[in-house]
Amino acid sequence: MNVDAANAEAIRRLAAARPFLVDVRPACELIPTLGESDLLHAGPPLAGWGEACGALRGAIAGTLLQRGRIPDLDAAEGVVANGEIRLSPANDVNALATYGGVIGNRTPLLVLENRAAGVRAFAALNEGRGRALRYGANDAETLSRLAWLEGEFSEILASALRLSGGVDVFEILAQALHMGDDGHSRQKAASALLLNAIAPFMVETQFPKEQITRALRFVGRNDIFFLPLTMAAAKSALSSAENISGSTVVTCMCVNGARFGIKVSGLGDRWFTAPLPTIQGRYFEGYGADDANPVIGDSEIAETYGLGAFAMSAAPALARYVGGSPEEASRLSVEMYSITLAEDDRFTVPALSFRGTPLGIDARRVIEHGIEPIFNTGIAHREPGIGQIGAGFGRAPLA
Amino acid sequence: MNVDAANAEAIRRLAAARPFLVDVRPACELIPTLGESDLLHAGPPLAGWGEACGALRGAIAGTLLQRGRIPDLDAAEGVVANGEIRLSPANDVNALATYGGVIGNRTPLLVLENRAAGVRAFAALNEGRGRALRYGANDAETLSRLAWLEGEFSEILASALRLSGGVDVFEILAQALHMGDDGHSRQKAASALLLNAIAPFMVETQFPKEQITRALRFVGRNDIFFLPLTMAAAKSALSSAENISGSTVVTCMCVNGARFGIKVSGLGDRWFTAPLPTIQGRYFEGYGADDANPVIGDSEIAETYGLGAFAMSAAPALARYVGGSPEEASRLSVEMYSITLAEDDRFTVPALSFRGTPLGIDARRVIEHGIEPIFNTGIAHREPGIGQIGAGFGRAPLA
Repeated sequence: MNVDAANAEAIRRLAAARPFLVDVRPACELIPTLGESDLLHAGPPLAGWGEACGALRGAIAGTLLQRGRIPDLDAAEGVVANGEIRLSPANDVNALATYGGVIGNRTPLLVLENRAAGVRAFAALNEGRGRALRYGANDAETLSRLAWLEGEFSEILASALRLSGGVDVFEILAQALHMGDDGHSRQKAASALLLNAIAPFMVETQFPKEQITRALRFVGRNDIFFLPLTMAAAKSALSSAENISGSTVVTCMCVNGARFGIKVSGLGDRWFTAPLPTIQGRYFEGYGADDANPVIGDSEIAETYGLGAFAMSAAPALARYVGGSPEEASRLSVEMYSITLAEDDRFTVPALSFRGTPLGIDARRVIEHGIEPIFNTGIAHREPGIGQIGAGFGRAPLA
Repeated sequence: MNVDAANAEAIRRLAAARPFLVDVRPACELIPTLGESDLLHAGPPLAGWGEACGALRGAIAGTLLQRGRIPDLDAAEGVVANGEIRLSPANDVNALATYGGVIGNRTPLLVLENRAAGVRAFAALNEGRGRALRYGANDAETLSRLAWLEGEFSEILASALRLSGGVDVFEILAQALHMGDDGHSRQKAASALLLNAIAPFMVETQFPKEQITRALRFVGRNDIFFLPLTMAAAKSALSSAENISGSTVVTCMCVNGARFGIKVSGLGDRWFTAPLPTIQGRYFEGYGADDANPVIGDSEIAETYGLGAFAMSAAPALARYVGGSPEEASRLSVEMYSITLAEDDRFTVPALSFRGTPLGIDARRVIEHGIEPIFNTGIAHREPGIGQIGAGFGRAPLA
């Protein structure tokens, strides 16, 4: 197949994707290769513990402690360095890790099913803002909330989803882009709409009212609950466009705290990496760029699908949060049309006269135009345990 | 007090308002003057049944039938014409009627309490889109849904609100203006956020799960559920700024299907009326201006408080719905700053670099600048029973 035909097929598959949130299940049931000693992380492969940034170290230590693999947090380094734990990229098994978060074989994962292609992708539940394992926090309160999230909450959500028959994630995202979300850093509308859709099914489960109330309250106060749904939905769409011989469409962008990584459809499972991007961000009072953790996370899969920073014109309120004016954010977003192949008429931006979001990054165009893709990101502290300290955006230095 | 000082006091009270949704109770418990024979309607006073437009006639007939006052719909005219029913403006007793909707002494009303001033205002529950009593529909299905809404649903909501301690309506509205709502015709974000806030309390009530599920599903699918909350919240704020001697601030705008009416703070309870505004709208396929009902409704109270059409820059997706481009809608909104006295820093518009909404229409400025206030409106069919057939906006022809 020639490149244009191959790319047309990739775009056709991306535009046809219909991801539904259908279940929450332990990782080992979804990814059979995942053993007791495996931990999946964000971004391309790491060369061991030495390359693990603060947020990732904190998340690994917290996870090992919570699973009874180590007696205390200090023991984590020894266990990983000894090779008793295998670290590998979540993306390689169609899973996504947010920021420094890791996925073990017992981690409950959201199951996103792309019904147009029969492809599934997975992501861990969002713990909320502030101190969270994915930012490297691993204090007792953080781990206790996580235990509830991965236990009682996951069971209620899983039961509700089975009763619902599945939630159409792109339908919610399309509405959310008309409601000030960008589809990555701002998930306020999508999170609220999701709860509207699933609350009745949560009540219909067999769980006691007090447990359901707790679950409803948690989601109702977590305005980024939807983020991993978007990520896994985008992944389930992009996965369906992988391995098309000759296609130059970028199917994955992500960061591991040491390198930026991409995959390209026609080049199969091979990772291409580049140095870390620099972030222009806005920090909480008293913090600055020197405190920032190196960028890490799989959430750039949203931009790979044309959401997030590619759709910031839809989210003027976000621009101020990540730093910068709505006009500048919109200008950067619109620039992305020059490196993409199509426009997604399912995701329209009212402020751009309902123009479709830019779809399908063409690696050739990135090189021709010299324009690197932009993405939104959270900025956590370089030392584990401090939670998020800001937000910003960067440019993907495609290799 | 001179005019400027009086207006400054009016603005101070408007900007200080803190309306909370606290309860749902039958109208007779909230408005003691309301008897069995009273029906409250939108807009300034009507000169009897002869002036009642199609939507209002349909709503009156449906209400009388539902309350067993008449044997069939055809008997409504005789009962009203005979003087057995008294029609009077809802606004005169701090209540608001949406479109042709009427409030009887047993109608459950949302109770909005302006905690800064100890003023309350009331509005009936929103029945959802399509065939609804407020648009004049009075078929069996519409009346059956209404009976459920005014019975089981109202009891669940009232119990939940008492458990909650009250919902801060302006806090939700402020968020909603960052989420594509205008605060009048588009209530999608506010409705979703409200359900997020009250769902846990609904589950905590003593009602059985199946009733709670039904209630959650109704609100979750009704993207204008929040409209009467906004209306009564705005009214509770504007009421606190009434009767300030010398003030030229407009405290009420509304339409009764025959005339447009306003009240001005320094001029007390007196109504000033003008001919009906003409509406530029967008109709459902197969309908046009000839099918439109004359404008009616109290929802222009939203614009009186600087929301709705005064904040359309916040709602680019709405512009297409009411007809017109986001740019034109934004231009009209911005024009309103020339007839208002202040900007509300609690309600900011991201697309206008977070400028506050225009607050406090000054009747003098309207005359000086020759700019009539704009408002959004629904357009129902002139004959009762057909439901909403479009949406549009008009200009208030202030007398």
